[in-house]
Amino acid sequence: MQNPQQGHHERNERHEHNDRHGHGSHGRHHEPPHDHGHRHVDEDMLSVEEAYRQIMACFSPLEVEEKPILDCLGQTLAVDVHSPLALPPLANSGMDGYAVRREDIAGASEASPRNLTVIGLVAAGQVSDQTVTSGTAIRIMTGAPVPSGADTVVPFEETDEISRRSSGRPLTDIDIQADLPFGCNVRPAGEDVQTGQLVLDAGTLIRPAEMGVLASLGLQRVRVIRRPLVSVLSTGDELATLGEELAGGKIYDSNSFGVAASVAAAGGVPRVLGIARDNLEDMHRKLEEVAGSDLLVTSAGVSKGDYDVVKDVLTERGDINFWSVRMRPAKPLAFGMLRGDPVNGSGKPVPLMGLPGNPVSAMVAFEMFARPAIRTMLGRRQLARPTVEGVLTAPIYNSDGRRVYARVEVEKRDGTYYANPTGPQGSNILTSMSRANALAICPEDLPAKQAGETVQIIMLDWNEEVNI
Amino acid sequence: MQNPQQGHHERNERHEHNDRHGHGSHGRHHEPPHDHGHRHVDEDMLSVEEAYRQIMACFSPLEVEEKPILDCLGQTLAVDVHSPLALPPLANSGMDGYAVRREDIAGASEASPRNLTVIGLVAAGQVSDQTVTSGTAIRIMTGAPVPSGADTVVPFEETDEISRRSSGRPLTDIDIQADLPFGCNVRPAGEDVQTGQLVLDAGTLIRPAEMGVLASLGLQRVRVIRRPLVSVLSTGDELATLGEELAGGKIYDSNSFGVAASVAAAGGVPRVLGIARDNLEDMHRKLEEVAGSDLLVTSAGVSKGDYDVVKDVLTERGDINFWSVRMRPAKPLAFGMLRGDPVNGSGKPVPLMGLPGNPVSAMVAFEMFARPAIRTMLGRRQLARPTVEGVLTAPIYNSDGRRVYARVEVEKRDGTYYANPTGPQGSNILTSMSRANALAICPEDLPAKQAGETVQIIMLDWNEEVNI
Repeated sequence: MQNPQQGHHERNERHEHNDRHGHGSHGRHHEPPHDHGHRHVDEDMLSVEEAYRQIMACFSPLEVEEKPILDCLGQTLAVDVHSPLALPPLANSGMDGYAVRREDIAGASEASPRNLTVIGLVAAGQVSDQTVTSGTAIRIMTGAPVPSGADTVVPFEETDEISRRSSGRPLTDIDIQADLPFGCNVRPAGEDVQTGQLVLDAGTLIRPAEMGVLASLGLQRVRVIRRPLVSVLSTGDELATLGEELAGGKIYDSNSFGVAASVAAAGGVPRVLGIARDNLEDMHRKLEEVAGSDLLVTSAGVSKGDYDVVKDVLTERGDINFWSVRMRPAKPLAFGMLRGDPVNGSGKPVPLMGLPGNPVSAMVAFEMFARPAIRTMLGRRQLARPTVEGVLTAPIYNSDGRRVYARVEVEKRDGTYYANPTGPQGSNILTSMSRANALAICPEDLPAKQAGETVQIIMLDWNEEVNI
Repeated sequence: MQNPQQGHHERNERHEHNDRHGHGSHGRHHEPPHDHGHRHVDEDMLSVEEAYRQIMACFSPLEVEEKPILDCLGQTLAVDVHSPLALPPLANSGMDGYAVRREDIAGASEASPRNLTVIGLVAAGQVSDQTVTSGTAIRIMTGAPVPSGADTVVPFEETDEISRRSSGRPLTDIDIQADLPFGCNVRPAGEDVQTGQLVLDAGTLIRPAEMGVLASLGLQRVRVIRRPLVSVLSTGDELATLGEELAGGKIYDSNSFGVAASVAAAGGVPRVLGIARDNLEDMHRKLEEVAGSDLLVTSAGVSKGDYDVVKDVLTERGDINFWSVRMRPAKPLAFGMLRGDPVNGSGKPVPLMGLPGNPVSAMVAFEMFARPAIRTMLGRRQLARPTVEGVLTAPIYNSDGRRVYARVEVEKRDGTYYANPTGPQGSNILTSMSRANALAICPEDLPAKQAGETVQIIMLDWNEEVNI
């Protein structure tokens, strides 16, 4: 298991009720939370590691597809790529100069040059039909195949070519002014890659360098792991669609957009289903649209609340667990498998991940569980974000024995990473997420991490580098 | 200037002739290069910093476009975004519980509860038309607007609701069992964002978190800096198109693909023009297709070689500099402006960047100069790759006073970065680029960096993170 860190466990948790949008008030403003008489409820919580383990057990790399190479950037190779040719295909020149037989230039120097008859010229992309015999040379350009008979290339500077040109003498013969070792400036055939050689192995991520390698092998198409199709569904009567007038205490559905963007940034293909209302018909209708997806990510409706429409419908349509995970934010989490098309009895099961409704909780839960699932389906080897250690500049409080993922802005000064909490940490405060480039961890068994203490930091991006 | 590092200067350079594909033999196999009598030629080289400065002076953020927000992932905001609304729009509950007047629950405890009459219920997305008066309460769900008259929310656990339910008593009244402070569990309107507040400033990169913020403000479309259109052109008679049979000493055109992928990974939109042959007609015809691009990136034909077709045509069509840059690989570099459509006398000038033909040289020159230019056009604030210091595990030699960018694989062990050179460093060896995740630097004024020495490292990706 690569992703979650610092697995400390304890019991005795405070109970949180609901994961509806616009929730969360603990630990705001970085002050120690007041205990307003809430009782500690011994609740059956799952560790982050255990939730991760159970989720990841349900995902594996998807099927293979074959596509033009330029469409495969960011996907992983499904097969080992062996070279169909040698690179370079023929021995060629590493310099502009004269292709010679080394034995003809033994002992040559500026004071004691060797004169050779120039019998031809060969440029890159040409093959000379002439042979270099004793006493002769062929003028050769960089990249051009070395003519038969020649074994060594003498660069222009080690000849009298420039003085010949400036004095108007023809290049029908040439003075070689240096003794070079056998094979000098000749790149042998297969120097980079030999025919049949394993060049890129299955599972390699196709970056620009790998794209260049595939093209240099002459491959037009390549077999890669396909990208997962991830359906995105928001739930709740309180949500308004963008463009709608806000009224009656509604808020705009931000999770459809935040989650869809997270799916795309993780390498998946998002399919936005919109909003399911808190009634059975609407919920069922939306879930009919999920068929064919590799994952459904919902938000809201999965914690211990009053309105159980989401949970009832999900339970009716699959084998779903509703968990409390020992983390803050994002304690409530649903995970399980939705059965295939229940009407026709066909279709493959679709994994469901039910995120909390609070925008920040949804993003953090996505980071911890959905992103590694998507990357697993993509065949990526590295599932976790990079982590660093850094110095905290303001405290992170842990009021109830959960692992806290605090939004921080990380900067590096004099070789040390500093994690600056980005202000109010309420799970409703999405703007704090937009100021953050990382999550700093306060372990579940510590009451706080104080300013000046060293913390583990999960980097969400590096200088704006990741989410392109 | 953010990008190039370690600007040490010296003169007395070895001359290199040509940038044709399949070139480069110095410093292979990590052995000190032999000096086979090549003379040191005093050449007018540009420092990396000076080339960067001259190039970057020609680029600025592109025009604004307005698009649906979900299409803007990875682009930067062209305008400050002020909130058209307050978030949350109305004061609402942070918990499932009872909305009360705090004065009614002063002194309440489990031993001494306060009994209130429950006059109604309000769920998220509803607005209660009732008012909480002295002695009354309204049952409220998380996210629901706090009814008028109420100022505090008491969570279920601090009431006798559970015991009432289990004993079958109705919820027409409720015992409050805790005294909470005024305003507890009430999220005030505008807590996250106030109406008119600057939420995201111009230049902000739209990541998933910013996507969520834009949606939460109800914005369907947003004004962003458009992506640059980058034409990609390979040149050379020695190049074969993918799918073509290799013959006559040809090699496949890998630069079109490597460069196009680099453009896409940097956030630009590549337009692949294919291969221009080494004749005037073909070169002119290809350059006619460049109109409307924000940048043309060519490869090969820009150094001091024998065949000057590329240079002649570029010079005829614009104001182009052909530089030697004090770096290895990628010494030859062309940069300048192509005039707009010379036939019709219309069209805007197109910046031209002429990369060397060797695949590795092309990629390194792209990294150092084309990528920051593209990111500047995108309006990105951070132009450079992140850099770290690390320990070199094998030497990097510098035979001729140029800054060496060695392909390395960086790994972190016990908190220290180690840079492992990825094998043969000839600029033809593209496979070494595919094994690398970073470039380690040997400054131009040092003859070598030895194993065990600390080097500056330019990270090309972090654990496969960047190039998605």
